[in-house]
Amino acid sequence: MSRVRLPAVVSHPVRLLPLSFLMLILVGTLLLLIPAATTQSGSAGFVDALFTATSAVTVTGLATVDTSAYWTPAGQGIILFLVQVGGLGIVAISTVLGLFIGGRLGLRTRLVAQTEMHVVNIGEVRPLFRRVAVIMIGFQLAIAALLTIRYREEYFETWADALWHGYFDAVMAFNNAGFSLNADSLTTYAGDGLIILPICLGVFIGAMGFPVLAELFKDWRNPDRWTIHTRLTVWGSIMLLVIGAAAFMALEWSNPATLGALPWHERIISGIEGGVMPRSGGLNSFDWGAVQGETLSMGTVLMFIGGGSASTAGGIKVTTFLLLGFVILAELRGDPEVSIGNRSIGPAVVRTALSIALISVMLVTSTTWLLMLLTDFSFEDVLFEATSAFATAGLSTGITPDLPHSAKLVLAALMFIGRVGTITAASAFVLRRRVTRYHLPEEQPIIG
Amino acid sequence: MSRVRLPAVVSHPVRLLPLSFLMLILVGTLLLLIPAATTQSGSAGFVDALFTATSAVTVTGLATVDTSAYWTPAGQGIILFLVQVGGLGIVAISTVLGLFIGGRLGLRTRLVAQTEMHVVNIGEVRPLFRRVAVIMIGFQLAIAALLTIRYREEYFETWADALWHGYFDAVMAFNNAGFSLNADSLTTYAGDGLIILPICLGVFIGAMGFPVLAELFKDWRNPDRWTIHTRLTVWGSIMLLVIGAAAFMALEWSNPATLGALPWHERIISGIEGGVMPRSGGLNSFDWGAVQGETLSMGTVLMFIGGGSASTAGGIKVTTFLLLGFVILAELRGDPEVSIGNRSIGPAVVRTALSIALISVMLVTSTTWLLMLLTDFSFEDVLFEATSAFATAGLSTGITPDLPHSAKLVLAALMFIGRVGTITAASAFVLRRRVTRYHLPEEQPIIG
Ligand SMILES: [K+]
Ligand SMILES: [K+]
Repeated sequence: MSRVRLPAVVSHPVRLLPLSFLMLILVGTLLLLIPAATTQSGSAGFVDALFTATSAVTVTGLATVDTSAYWTPAGQGIILFLVQVGGLGIVAISTVLGLFIGGRLGLRTRLVAQTEMHVVNIGEVRPLFRRVAVIMIGFQLAIAALLTIRYREEYFETWADALWHGYFDAVMAFNNAGFSLNADSLTTYAGDGLIILPICLGVFIGAMGFPVLAELFKDWRNPDRWTIHTRLTVWGSIMLLVIGAAAFMALEWSNPATLGALPWHERIISGIEGGVMPRSGGLNSFDWGAVQGETLSMGTVLMFIGGGSASTAGGIKVTTFLLLGFVILAELRGDPEVSIGNRSIGPAVVRTALSIALISVMLVTSTTWLLMLLTDFSFEDVLFEATSAFATAGLSTGITPDLPHSAKLVLAALMFIGRVGTITAASAFVLRRRVTRYHLPEEQPIIG
Repeated sequence: MSRVRLPAVVSHPVRLLPLSFLMLILVGTLLLLIPAATTQSGSAGFVDALFTATSAVTVTGLATVDTSAYWTPAGQGIILFLVQVGGLGIVAISTVLGLFIGGRLGLRTRLVAQTEMHVVNIGEVRPLFRRVAVIMIGFQLAIAALLTIRYREEYFETWADALWHGYFDAVMAFNNAGFSLNADSLTTYAGDGLIILPICLGVFIGAMGFPVLAELFKDWRNPDRWTIHTRLTVWGSIMLLVIGAAAFMALEWSNPATLGALPWHERIISGIEGGVMPRSGGLNSFDWGAVQGETLSMGTVLMFIGGGSASTAGGIKVTTFLLLGFVILAELRGDPEVSIGNRSIGPAVVRTALSIALISVMLVTSTTWLLMLLTDFSFEDVLFEATSAFATAGLSTGITPDLPHSAKLVLAALMFIGRVGTITAASAFVLRRRVTRYHLPEEQPIIG
């Protein structure tokens, strides 16, 4: 621990993040309350506008109303804008915080040097923000192009319609936000690999997170030289995708309400979707309310884990999840240090990971409990919904529109906390770099 | 970390524990298979005998058959014997392991000194075992006396019957094992404070654990001088009892299937029972299958937390639970060290606590998942059952007798792992005291 005072830019984003997101949600709510935004007579309901704005800004995708019928194209454009700004904001801010935390991309030493003079050159951060925006929007445009061509070919009469749907869906996919211009999300396209697979690719890449994408761009040929963070995220994401898709197919293969209705090659496409989407995508070509109980619990666990750090995905994050696995491994083996590859992981990081996991469990558990008090839905539906909100995943068994106002507000709060909270918690780690002036005597309570 | 080779007696109990429990379960199964043990023609079913023996040795109390009707008094005596030996074994062995781990009661330094000569004086451990047995059996006899008097007065014609029930129930209460000589557990005595309260007291004291009881005996007048372990266990247990009972009463007060049927002062007695029993007691005077969904999830959480270390209660343990709370607190505050009272808690203890909590979550989750595949019961019933088995709590919504053989075997395995596993995990902490010869370079992956 070095004797470093924190520069304003570090403590700033940490405090600024919740505030700026709150502002954005407020602006979004007001915009959605404009009568032209809704097809209803008068303006939209306040709670629904607030919920939709929160869901969009946190790139979740849970919807209390039918996006295609309740909102006009103007309203849908506002949602698109909120998702775009929210997604960029999350990735950019958490990337900058990540640099301070993890010292990746070689920036850390420079920043520390500046810190000691209590001067930070904001000019060093701006090109990074620009790079984040260019990479993210580039990916979105590429996927939008693929979708537009297929939409024009198969589903829409005009290029204008195809482009609007293609661009909207690409932005949603890459930002891991689950809003759709169709009442039934992707159901019309179920089994169409030229639609489902690009969308899944968008979700998967968006869920990697900017630091990983940036490192892959620079050095994808040499997996041996990747940082631990990139290795954990890449291999962990692939592992979760393969396990999730395989288990989904095994459980749902003969379920007539989901995969069972499709020819076998389309079942594989939907199976891949079933493995990708809970990693925080939120779009669906089949009904999550109709899957087996076992599939629903698996989806709950996948949503809870979520995607990569500094990405548009939520959850406790792949690195946190894998790191905790390595901690358990070290504990069972009796190793004095937690090591991954040939790097050791310090106890402060272990403590942060632990805290994030436990706070998340407590948040989801207490929200589930609250929703049980407020509604009559089944335990598994309510647990799935709460996990989806916390992990900003956006999947639902279909109960969202039927929730009472109180439950909608609880879920909106959880989306906000789930999105802003884990980043803030991770950043608190930075704030701990301070001088310890004394040590208390140690004592070891019996554990277990 | 000192350069200490492990004495045989340390590595022994750790390895010996699973083996000796396995042996005891085998012996118990064989005894229960003797035709005289069962009221059935021929001998008892093998899976039911194995399940009952496992449930008794691990002091759980889950029962696939009606203890009062399926087993003869001889069979019930075998169950009583298995609970008595299992409970004493757990407390004695984990107390000794606890000494090695935590250095309480001043024994540690002596043991470490001997360790360096590779000699351990088993004579030092024997008086401790004797003290455990005396205290535990003393408590059981006191509660047996209270129950016997009331049983004779109100429920049984002969002193012999009253004594048999009184002693059996006292052993079950103090050992936190949920077997009952009545088909409907304590339902006949619902609201009778002279039965329910002594049983709750037995469960509560039994769940404290021997190290705490020993310290309280020596020094109950000076809470300021208690070890952190005793403070955490005592205040944590009282806190969980009060919160559990208050929430139980609030949720069930007007439920006609539980408290609603009783006069108000009896509701309070049943409410206290509702707060105590999930802390691993397993006896019940009302139907846990008839409680509200919110109450059931609260019971699940209380069972998962469980009782004190080196006690007959299961779960992750009160100290582990509270310690994790202090870790989160330190993390949120940005404190470099985790401290409780005026003691600091080292990162190795934090890591052990974390590992126990996470492995436990994984065990319960995967068993719940397996039970969903094997049966058609609802998610919350199956989760409650799996948690009850893992935490050796013994409560059930009533599904145990209707489970298929496969599910019974899965639960038997979980009771065994739940009982033996957390102690072993805690002891692994001891095994980690070894010399680190090199340090890997540190790296900090982004978390959250
Ligand atoms: K999402
Ligand atoms: K029990």
